[in-house]
Amino acid sequence: MLVNSRDVEIEWGDCDAAGIVFYPRYFAMFDASTAYLLEKATGMKKIAWTKHYGIVGIPMVDTGAKFIIPSRYGDVIRIETQASGIRRSSFDILHKVYKSEALAIEARETRVWAGVDPDNPDRIKGYAIPDEVAAALRG
Amino acid sequence: MLVNSRDVEIEWGDCDAAGIVFYPRYFAMFDASTAYLLEKATGMKKIAWTKHYGIVGIPMVDTGAKFIIPSRYGDVIRIETQASGIRRSSFDILHKVYKSEALAIEARETRVWAGVDPDNPDRIKGYAIPDEVAAALRG
Amino acid sequence: MLVNSRDVEIEWGDCDAAGIVFYPRYFAMFDASTAYLLEKATGMKKIAWTKHYGIVGIPMVDTGAKFIIPSRYGDVIRIETQASGIRRSSFDILHKVYKSEALAIEARETRVWAGVDPDNPDRIKGYAIPDEVAAALRG
Amino acid sequence: MLVNSRDVEIEWGDCDAAGIVFYPRYFAMFDASTAYLLEKATGMKKIAWTKHYGIVGIPMVDTGAKFIIPSRYGDVIRIETQASGIRRSSFDILHKVYKSEALAIEARETRVWAGVDPDNPDRIKGYAIPDEVAAALRG
Repeated sequence: MLVNSRDVEIEWGDCDAAGIVFYPRYFAMFDASTAYLLEKATGMKKIAWTKHYGIVGIPMVDTGAKFIIPSRYGDVIRIETQASGIRRSSFDILHKVYKSEALAIEARETRVWAGVDPDNPDRIKGYAIPDEVAAALRG
Repeated sequence: MLVNSRDVEIEWGDCDAAGIVFYPRYFAMFDASTAYLLEKATGMKKIAWTKHYGIVGIPMVDTGAKFIIPSRYGDVIRIETQASGIRRSSFDILHKVYKSEALAIEARETRVWAGVDPDNPDRIKGYAIPDEVAAALRG
Repeated sequence: MLVNSRDVEIEWGDCDAAGIVFYPRYFAMFDASTAYLLEKATGMKKIAWTKHYGIVGIPMVDTGAKFIIPSRYGDVIRIETQASGIRRSSFDILHKVYKSEALAIEARETRVWAGVDPDNPDRIKGYAIPDEVAAALRG
Repeated sequence: MLVNSRDVEIEWGDCDAAGIVFYPRYFAMFDASTAYLLEKATGMKKIAWTKHYGIVGIPMVDTGAKFIIPSRYGDVIRIETQASGIRRSSFDILHKVYKSEALAIEARETRVWAGVDPDNPDRIKGYAIPDEVAAALRG
């Protein structure tokens, strides 16, 4: 599988009054990591590939995370992101967060490859994930 | 079970470039909803009950959410929060988000009733949830 | 002047590792307060009045804040918002934040009443603020 | 003056429903940029230098920003940060944000070098900025 790995330094504003990362911030980091993975897979920024493939985006339908080791201001974490399942019009993402070499968080996502519903322009529906995108994600 | 119900109006800054709520924002709302539930159960603000019960907090160890209906700027959602499982030193929370009367999101959390580890003041460990708190959460 | 006053309870996730509100959060609160003021002035939500008046929004061009008294988790602050200057196509907003009866923050904004530039659809330009909106803001 | 320059890529979650950066996000970026400048000046992370110099932090007392050019998802902005005034116990910071070579935002801050007030441990007061820190900021 294609993996996107990036280092993120925890900033002051990421942390709560207990001095550890306020966990909703991790989901913002994961959302960006998924965008970077798709950028790597398509060779385009999200704005460009959604236009190129005629979709509106990849909305989240299900996500979850296990928090194993907390992180604090100044820590540098490594977020490794890859697809863990690719179906016709939806796919799963797995994020592993490492602090030094220890697994600190494991998170998963299910997203839909979604475009405008031709029967109802106010709604979206799943579209088939292009073969080339699926192949690139498989690496 | 004791339920905390509150209405939240979606603000401009909660939404992303697709015009729907950026999902990490929901986790911030859920964190606040859990704090309001505990406030209702203990009759104290979080700062007061953590001090009263000699703990450092209720860190998240596992969370997840299913996103069923998206929300947009100006929408008012109702977040209903309750404990769905109470063990010796950890507990589960269930959040149901309604838009009008439809279920829009279902989220779950597992948190630990955590204090300083007497054997290692740099670490935390699970403490027994006080009977009165468990009873109040059970309602 | 028309005033919008609202109470905001400081949540855990609004605070930083020093236990006080992370100041960028105040700007998010101010942005929402300005939206509520315009909603009060126009009788419509932002989505509706931007459509009604044919503009794209009221982008911020200049803002500033003086922080006098810090706030912490659980504090309830009152944000009073009003226009402090209305010109042809731009206007000023003043936010006063009170903690109990003491002035905790004073913030100002300058925003533009902005629509698509007919000479260049990729750009925006200032449009004349409708008389009825100016009159409603003057109260 | 010592300058800290860093590139920031605008992420999906930084943007609002109009597709441009939600301006409170810039203040979070500026706060981090000031922390990086101080890290460069002291050779220590914020956690370490606050401890080393016996202060509680550098709370913001006044900030402001002029927004000249908006940024969108995928844009890379350069934030250049330096001290623009250093007094006994307070100092000014100037942030210049460039998009390509054009000035996109100019922001200023006034912060206090603050420690616990010996006369009232519940309050903070300005302490003298150490000569070595002032000299390093002057570059």
